[in-house]
Amino acid sequence: MEQFLIEAKEAARTTATLKPYFKTAVLMEFAHAIRRFSADIIEANALDLKSAKENNLSYAMIERLMLNEKRIEDMAKAVEEIAALRDPVGRILDGWVVPNGLRIEKVATPIGVVGIIYESRPNVTSDTAALCFKSGNVCVLKGGKEAQNSNEAIVAAIKEALQKFDLPLHAVSLLPDSTREGVAKFIKMDKYVDVIVPRGGESLISFVTKNSAIPVIKHDKGVCHTYVDSEADLEKAVNIAVNAKCSKPSACNALETLLVHKDVAKVLLPKIHTAFKEAGTELRGCEKTLQIIDIKEATEEDYSTEYLDNILTIKVVEDLDEAIAHIAQYGTSHSEAIITENYTKAEKFMNSIDAACLYLNASSRFTDGGEFGFGAEVGISTNKLHARGPMGINELTTYKYKVYGEGQIRP
Amino acid sequence: MEQFLIEAKEAARTTATLKPYFKTAVLMEFAHAIRRFSADIIEANALDLKSAKENNLSYAMIERLMLNEKRIEDMAKAVEEIAALRDPVGRILDGWVVPNGLRIEKVATPIGVVGIIYESRPNVTSDTAALCFKSGNVCVLKGGKEAQNSNEAIVAAIKEALQKFDLPLHAVSLLPDSTREGVAKFIKMDKYVDVIVPRGGESLISFVTKNSAIPVIKHDKGVCHTYVDSEADLEKAVNIAVNAKCSKPSACNALETLLVHKDVAKVLLPKIHTAFKEAGTELRGCEKTLQIIDIKEATEEDYSTEYLDNILTIKVVEDLDEAIAHIAQYGTSHSEAIITENYTKAEKFMNSIDAACLYLNASSRFTDGGEFGFGAEVGISTNKLHARGPMGINELTTYKYKVYGEGQIRP
Repeated sequence: MEQFLIEAKEAARTTATLKPYFKTAVLMEFAHAIRRFSADIIEANALDLKSAKENNLSYAMIERLMLNEKRIEDMAKAVEEIAALRDPVGRILDGWVVPNGLRIEKVATPIGVVGIIYESRPNVTSDTAALCFKSGNVCVLKGGKEAQNSNEAIVAAIKEALQKFDLPLHAVSLLPDSTREGVAKFIKMDKYVDVIVPRGGESLISFVTKNSAIPVIKHDKGVCHTYVDSEADLEKAVNIAVNAKCSKPSACNALETLLVHKDVAKVLLPKIHTAFKEAGTELRGCEKTLQIIDIKEATEEDYSTEYLDNILTIKVVEDLDEAIAHIAQYGTSHSEAIITENYTKAEKFMNSIDAACLYLNASSRFTDGGEFGFGAEVGISTNKLHARGPMGINELTTYKYKVYGEGQIRP
Repeated sequence: MEQFLIEAKEAARTTATLKPYFKTAVLMEFAHAIRRFSADIIEANALDLKSAKENNLSYAMIERLMLNEKRIEDMAKAVEEIAALRDPVGRILDGWVVPNGLRIEKVATPIGVVGIIYESRPNVTSDTAALCFKSGNVCVLKGGKEAQNSNEAIVAAIKEALQKFDLPLHAVSLLPDSTREGVAKFIKMDKYVDVIVPRGGESLISFVTKNSAIPVIKHDKGVCHTYVDSEADLEKAVNIAVNAKCSKPSACNALETLLVHKDVAKVLLPKIHTAFKEAGTELRGCEKTLQIIDIKEATEEDYSTEYLDNILTIKVVEDLDEAIAHIAQYGTSHSEAIITENYTKAEKFMNSIDAACLYLNASSRFTDGGEFGFGAEVGISTNKLHARGPMGINELTTYKYKVYGEGQIRP
């Protein structure tokens, strides 16, 4: 593995200084190669699907894993969209002149070698490879073992495109040893790898965070809240709550606990009850909620659970302060929303809660690179350092200072 | 320790939302308290000095440790300067409106609980406490054991100032257990501490990086180069080289290896020899250097050594590409300089080398928060993520997204 990573690091010196137009051309070729290789990719995917069925994977997982012509075309199109984004390398982030006349430019540069560990759909492979290449980085990908054949076929297509442009094939590759031991070894290689991005279940993220010698940008769980204030527009509140929970219950930005100000509980909760009944959501409520609507009782555990399912907990609170305190205690600093028409309360909520994304009168489901206008995303960071929230190509860069002088020496 | 850190995290909720004018007033009181407590601080420092002498610490270390009225006044003034800086919290870093009308603001926020582990002068204690407080963070400080009494006295003064304003005393504190085991425990507490900044020797930094479950921003060694190109102004080259090496040989941004283009070696090296002889620098050279000037021969090990001493290695290179390759192999991505009048070569050097700070015709000794205009610095980061190079109060913040809607839901 060490020799492999030495070559990855060497490749990063090449990818870091490619011209924007050249990277765009290479990425267009990535897309063409994915289309050209679609029969190979579907064949490889069939092997994965066969094992998945043999291993009794759930219908949902098999559905996620499955590739067909249309899905491969979507993958190619996503790569073309990334190709068309503004190049993130070389952006001048800041600049000034210090008293002695030195001119300082703060410039965006690639991070270097990016390790991405994921347990997702095969399209993440092509998306991530394209995002890393666009931002001048080398990526080392470790996908789920259930998608190993599919991922290999996708990376083979990309490598053919790299070869056409005489680029180092290590610019995009799969981790050669994809066992748990291989991953354990990989995350100790801080001499060659600059950042590890784990996306997946809690046990994966905790394993990587605890054992990595390399900086980690984690994509951890979201226990997200929406607080309906006493001065909320209740129609907006119902629409947003239903959307935040039901548009994709398995998403990390989905609503888990609805907090309701006591003054609107009597009017709002019956509407909520009706709306969620239509959406087939299982509701669980605090004691005060149960006095108004007839649903299951919530336990203490519910408040800190990311259901990843169509289940919602409801809690009636005294006021904004109790809502903020509840979120500080149970939230995971992901995405938190307030529904109110009151400016002062809205700003208090958004300024005092420590989370990646705070929403006023909008669904927390908007925490997403595409929705934020980043084009595509590597994921949603729950780190506080470097990248927080949706992580696009700009977040795949770091910076350097370029200092221009005329002979200045330090007194 | 856990209870202590729970209270530190709780205190961070308070410090995060203090108004700028209020933080300025508290910091001015930090400075006053340091002056008021100066007799206590000097008394405590005397105990440290006594142990230092008993333990046969070097003259240089004792000199660094020693506090007197003047040094305490300088500490107070440094805190006042930090108080006068522009508040870094709440800066709007970016903002845009997405197609559905959601207005997104990217806003600077405090990181939270910052752990700083250092082995330095006692003034780092007051500087760091002030920088963290200014940026809305809580700091947990772990200074060198040789300065323990001095640090306790300084923190006692600061805590009196905090008390005057009814602020949580955990806003600034020393790590209660300052043993190696205490530190080992501390850096596992990722539930409460958001970042660890280690400043000190290689063994400390390696210990923290390898064992921390908390993100680390390390302040590691600098093996810095200056490359004198064939088109350099040789007078600038000599001045800059002497300054980069001799103005403070123990600094991380000091020059360690001078790379000289072969076409100017014959003219430049005798001048370099004379200038460094005057400065008392020990020179070591490659084979080609030794053909021109009579100095000690350099070994392979010299090229990767951070001397922290008045010693310089000189190497003659064929061209710019060899200089860049040498720096890629031996450099530590800290501060690298090129001396040339040629625009194209200058930009090639500054764009292709991966380092925190690149200099054209200036001394690498300018890599410093004060020199960059940041006011004061927490240190110089050799991380690639989050903060790179000089780290001031802006680098002690992270960000959140505030998203303003009128009822938007995700389709």
